[in-house]
Amino acid sequence: MTDRRSIWAWGMESTEPAAVQRRLAAQDASGRFGIQLEPDEPPRVQSLQLRKPRITPPAALAHICSTDPRARTVHSYGHSFKDRVRKFDGTFHNPPDVVALPATEDDVATVLDWCSTSGYAAVPFGGGSSVVGGVEPPQDRAGVVSVDLTALNRVLEVDDTSRTARIQAGALGPVLEAQLRPLGMTLRHFPQSFEFSTLGGWIATRSGGHYATNRTQIDDFVQSVRLLTPAGKWESRRLPRSGAGPSPDRLLMGSEGALGIITEAWVRVQPRPRFRAGASAAFQSFRSACDAARGIVQAGLWPANCRVLDPAEARNSAGMDGASALLIIGFESAEIPQDFNLEAAAAIARDAGGCVLVESSTPAPAGRPARGSPGRDPAVAWRNAFINMPYKWDELAGLGLILDTFETAITWERWPQFDQSVRAAVAEALREVCGDGEITCRFTHVYPDGPAPYYTFIAPGKRGSELSMWAEIKQAASNAVLDAGGTITHHHAVGRDHRPWYDRQRPRLFGEALRAVKKAVDPHGVMNPGVLIDP
Amino acid sequence: MTDRRSIWAWGMESTEPAAVQRRLAAQDASGRFGIQLEPDEPPRVQSLQLRKPRITPPAALAHICSTDPRARTVHSYGHSFKDRVRKFDGTFHNPPDVVALPATEDDVATVLDWCSTSGYAAVPFGGGSSVVGGVEPPQDRAGVVSVDLTALNRVLEVDDTSRTARIQAGALGPVLEAQLRPLGMTLRHFPQSFEFSTLGGWIATRSGGHYATNRTQIDDFVQSVRLLTPAGKWESRRLPRSGAGPSPDRLLMGSEGALGIITEAWVRVQPRPRFRAGASAAFQSFRSACDAARGIVQAGLWPANCRVLDPAEARNSAGMDGASALLIIGFESAEIPQDFNLEAAAAIARDAGGCVLVESSTPAPAGRPARGSPGRDPAVAWRNAFINMPYKWDELAGLGLILDTFETAITWERWPQFDQSVRAAVAEALREVCGDGEITCRFTHVYPDGPAPYYTFIAPGKRGSELSMWAEIKQAASNAVLDAGGTITHHHAVGRDHRPWYDRQRPRLFGEALRAVKKAVDPHGVMNPGVLIDP
Repeated sequence: MTDRRSIWAWGMESTEPAAVQRRLAAQDASGRFGIQLEPDEPPRVQSLQLRKPRITPPAALAHICSTDPRARTVHSYGHSFKDRVRKFDGTFHNPPDVVALPATEDDVATVLDWCSTSGYAAVPFGGGSSVVGGVEPPQDRAGVVSVDLTALNRVLEVDDTSRTARIQAGALGPVLEAQLRPLGMTLRHFPQSFEFSTLGGWIATRSGGHYATNRTQIDDFVQSVRLLTPAGKWESRRLPRSGAGPSPDRLLMGSEGALGIITEAWVRVQPRPRFRAGASAAFQSFRSACDAARGIVQAGLWPANCRVLDPAEARNSAGMDGASALLIIGFESAEIPQDFNLEAAAAIARDAGGCVLVESSTPAPAGRPARGSPGRDPAVAWRNAFINMPYKWDELAGLGLILDTFETAITWERWPQFDQSVRAAVAEALREVCGDGEITCRFTHVYPDGPAPYYTFIAPGKRGSELSMWAEIKQAASNAVLDAGGTITHHHAVGRDHRPWYDRQRPRLFGEALRAVKKAVDPHGVMNPGVLIDP
Repeated sequence: MTDRRSIWAWGMESTEPAAVQRRLAAQDASGRFGIQLEPDEPPRVQSLQLRKPRITPPAALAHICSTDPRARTVHSYGHSFKDRVRKFDGTFHNPPDVVALPATEDDVATVLDWCSTSGYAAVPFGGGSSVVGGVEPPQDRAGVVSVDLTALNRVLEVDDTSRTARIQAGALGPVLEAQLRPLGMTLRHFPQSFEFSTLGGWIATRSGGHYATNRTQIDDFVQSVRLLTPAGKWESRRLPRSGAGPSPDRLLMGSEGALGIITEAWVRVQPRPRFRAGASAAFQSFRSACDAARGIVQAGLWPANCRVLDPAEARNSAGMDGASALLIIGFESAEIPQDFNLEAAAAIARDAGGCVLVESSTPAPAGRPARGSPGRDPAVAWRNAFINMPYKWDELAGLGLILDTFETAITWERWPQFDQSVRAAVAEALREVCGDGEITCRFTHVYPDGPAPYYTFIAPGKRGSELSMWAEIKQAASNAVLDAGGTITHHHAVGRDHRPWYDRQRPRLFGEALRAVKKAVDPHGVMNPGVLIDP
């Protein structure tokens, strides 16, 4: 039997947590919060009562369309906290009526024609990893088609000389990397959602990836984009850079399916790294670890990795003592040994009060063995934890826990005050709503002018009341982020869930401009309605 | 007497070339083309017959408005070849009626209100260095106001911690650097127009600056932008990076005054470099010098300077023998010695067949004196030539020469064929139109996926027929650039002169989108009409 996407957990059915894992996780969480938690049973697709499809695809599209309950269930939600609760509870009140799986770009155009003519919503769906309600059907439409792009998943062309590749937008991270690997190339864009997110999804949501500094957002990797809108094709010229008017691509990056469907893109790839050099450094305070990261990025050293973990994160995900903050630095290159850069970064970390724990270099420089053992390397521990996080969270499903993350970006000079007020607001909300809870922070990306902080909170909620409890905390967090000058999202996107804050954050006239653009390319307002902008 | 902008030459009246300089330049050019050239006399403001102002500013604006013939003359054109010829000939058929010099942002708003209410065109004017007809009054309006921003020229705030500064958009390059210098900071954006271009102009035209690699365009230095449109203010949040929808700033970068007037911006500044390391390398062919540049930038070395000059450019502006191509590499940093990076880059250059001529390092590494003498350094010779180029060209005015540059960007794998067909097309046009002439090329910027080539052509034209001769060559060049896959401009902008090719280049639907945006923020179509887009 082939493996299938789970209807409630992060990955496939085969990676759903076993009952024993869930019991152990419940014991852990019970111990942590001093309460008694028992895991509920996960949903079974056979027991779900889905609303009947309200619409029927035209004959020309029948071969790529499905109204199968499983398909419609899997395309009902993304992976936000709200989604995870509703999925585990078997609450699928507003599934898409039809799931279309275009095999060609022409199929996509035909689906958009059908939706435009009939006034049905077209919701682009890549890997379905949205944590902001970006792939959820709108409530107010007579029909909704979820357009699953994952059959458009090929690397079409690779240009070795310019180090670029033309890739179809529906390729999931592992799918595109598997096609680039035999050519010695890699895109090196590894968001936490890597397994279940697509190139098109990354571009549509301005995804943040592997690199912690310099060129990091998918924006920086895109050379040209091809978009299908209800009004036709929008394709930019393939250029390393241009100064001819505002960038057409930059208007599509972050458009979240509201303007059309990205079908392919030319992206910048590179050879796989041969040289690596990394270090971890412990600091007595989060503040001094942050200062070290700032010093490194402002010196223009551009490490591939430059993560800062506050003491609680360092304890939770890198095995530290709970009192020390951790800085993880890593350099990589296909061409140039990176030890010189690592030494320069380590010197800055030491100057800021850091104790450098492990330094490793691959291949090791002549006459110097690689120091430290990967087995005890907090950087390796952290990376494993990072990749497995969504699976770990599955083990905690159905316990009534409130468990979510939010992320932002802020300038360095406002950062200490920002962190203080955001933590205070969330801690207060956790206390009021849940009576207990923890908020922790790490930096996912650092820029010369500021960090991208990533907060995680966990609290004992009440089974059945998770959504309203979560909403109160999320609102406190979002208000605090906006009030302290941050952005409502650095790389999680806007979707439906961040709309109220996004609408506050963006320049009013830019909102008008976006609406005008939408009207020009999507005159019937069928593209992902409610996400990002209202028509 | 205070110095004033020349009505015909690049700089101030005090730097207009003397008669003797112009005679010597005429002799040189005569020798070069084997003809006899005599310089005409430059125009005098007293002899100009300007059209009378067609409109009168309202009382509220009288104190910042001028109808003085000199002011209107200076605001009639930019510095394109067309402009230089028309200025030298004293041809000022369509001057702005009024030159407004706002002292505050409120003044700017009042000017835009006046123009919107009356249907007059508002043409933003920074340093007036446009080479694409970006500051020229439209022909079809009943009244035109040139809005000179240079009184809004202050650095308002500097944030040392985040290394950013809030600067008024009308600050000319030297003016803003002079205010940053006492704080130890610099923007390090040095386009060739540096002396006579402004921060707002750089942003509105997506200027390319000092750095040859990595973060180079002004786009990369902008943290947030404040724009006044006829429909109100558009100001983005000050953030190191955001993933909340498409970037509002990126829609303003390259908007060329067609959407509104940029009044200020937060930009990324940095400490002045203390460490420098540079080298020049000679190559037997342009092709191998290009390969070296590609190798360096693809290795992620990010030199501040990485210019490639073809043999003719290397002869004309760096004193080389005319057979060798030149690669100029320079690294700089405020924090980290750059010798390691230079060695790595020099090794790549040697591998590509380069002969490294001069290596210098400041401060020199311990125990190693700086090699080479700056007096004989082709890199220094080239930089001086670069800065003085617009002044040198003034010496050639009025000789009937056809002398212009054009620039583009192209991916590496198409570059050799691109260069061949562009040179062939321009050489043929020069032969047909002028019977003689030379085209040369250098790279101004290099990206991992392609270079930004910059072509210069010079040919003996005919006094009085320069404009039509130029138009024919320019058209051949632009067609060749577009047909071979390039962009009509990498950093010179679109203006009026590049419109036909820009309209071909941009995605049709993006053109619709831009028009929709313009209508939303400039409903009466008063902002720089004819530039970039038609209403």
